[in-house]
Amino acid sequence: MFRTILSVTSEREGEAIDITDPVRKAVKESGVKEGLVHLFVRHSTAALTTIECEPGVLSDLRRALSVLAPDGVPYAHDTRWGDGNGRSHVKAALVGPSLTIPVAGGKLLCGTWQQVVLLELDVNAGRDRSVVCTVTGE
Amino acid sequence: MFRTILSVTSEREGEAIDITDPVRKAVKESGVKEGLVHLFVRHSTAALTTIECEPGVLSDLRRALSVLAPDGVPYAHDTRWGDGNGRSHVKAALVGPSLTIPVAGGKLLCGTWQQVVLLELDVNAGRDRSVVCTVTGE
Amino acid sequence: MFRTILSVTSEREGEAIDITDPVRKAVKESGVKEGLVHLFVRHSTAALTTIECEPGVLSDLRRALSVLAPDGVPYAHDTRWGDGNGRSHVKAALVGPSLTIPVAGGKLLCGTWQQVVLLELDVNAGRDRSVVCTVTGE
Repeated sequence: MFRTILSVTSEREGEAIDITDPVRKAVKESGVKEGLVHLFVRHSTAALTTIECEPGVLSDLRRALSVLAPDGVPYAHDTRWGDGNGRSHVKAALVGPSLTIPVAGGKLLCGTWQQVVLLELDVNAGRDRSVVCTVTGE
Repeated sequence: MFRTILSVTSEREGEAIDITDPVRKAVKESGVKEGLVHLFVRHSTAALTTIECEPGVLSDLRRALSVLAPDGVPYAHDTRWGDGNGRSHVKAALVGPSLTIPVAGGKLLCGTWQQVVLLELDVNAGRDRSVVCTVTGE
Repeated sequence: MFRTILSVTSEREGEAIDITDPVRKAVKESGVKEGLVHLFVRHSTAALTTIECEPGVLSDLRRALSVLAPDGVPYAHDTRWGDGNGRSHVKAALVGPSLTIPVAGGKLLCGTWQQVVLLELDVNAGRDRSVVCTVTGE
């Protein structure tokens, strides 16, 4: 088992940060040829998924997440705690913090149009985010 | 590999049951210091995710899930089977039954505001729910 | 570790293909009695989840996904690339490509009403889809 932490800094709410290359680097460093790589974002207002990482589809994704948790409506979380990021928590819980990808021949078995992204969902920009990366296999 | 079943009893639709402590206990019992813990809820009207487990944000999450699968509209599942829990199935399929969390130094690597929750999504209250907990590593 | 590729051909947008039996077969072939089976769909317009695989609830799920990413609205992805499948990418990113299920006594530990499905979300029908299936354990 190989473990490393991927660190990324976000700039704005709704940003999708392509972490495919850092994940590939971690897999290479692990020496694992056949196995799995598990990713986990250690934050309640960020999430992980795969998507074609081009600006158009990322803007479409932001709109879909805003259907679930719109701007400009009151959130019980914000009323209680004054954080202003109620919508961020909701989106993150629905997309989820965890992702596992197969590794074969030392490479990520993602599809051609399938990049690994960290979604920054917090309303407060410029956050340091940690993704725990665990590679298992042979 | 260590395996145990976490059993919880729900009280009402939309409830989020914090299972972080039982998961921690299972990891401790497993003796695994560096590895992964996998959770799987064996039901089609419940789901697993991570969230800051405070009443405000949980109520915000319930509202978001109701955007996807509102009360008071007809469901084809209910028309066919009379179960009345069409919305529950839909929400559960979208949030998902499966979650994997890294373990380091014998501890869960969750963020500070990131609790592990079972979402009871069924319209019928008072259900016994099983979460299969599998710990792998060294 | 045992690895195989499950191949399925879809017929139409919104289709849910029950892959529980092929996954069971792969687990049997692996010889693993106690462990985990990991599934990953290698496409950006398909997704994996569990659901009660009956036509009613599948139609309810399609409606819920259309709330998130409706037909008949413009997508930035389509404007840029002319693919016409902006909504497909959005739905797939939200449901997710990855699923892990426990194996005990050589069997999948799914609930009775919990089938494993590949969701074909692309607007273009008749696609060949690959699901990477990795079985780990003893």
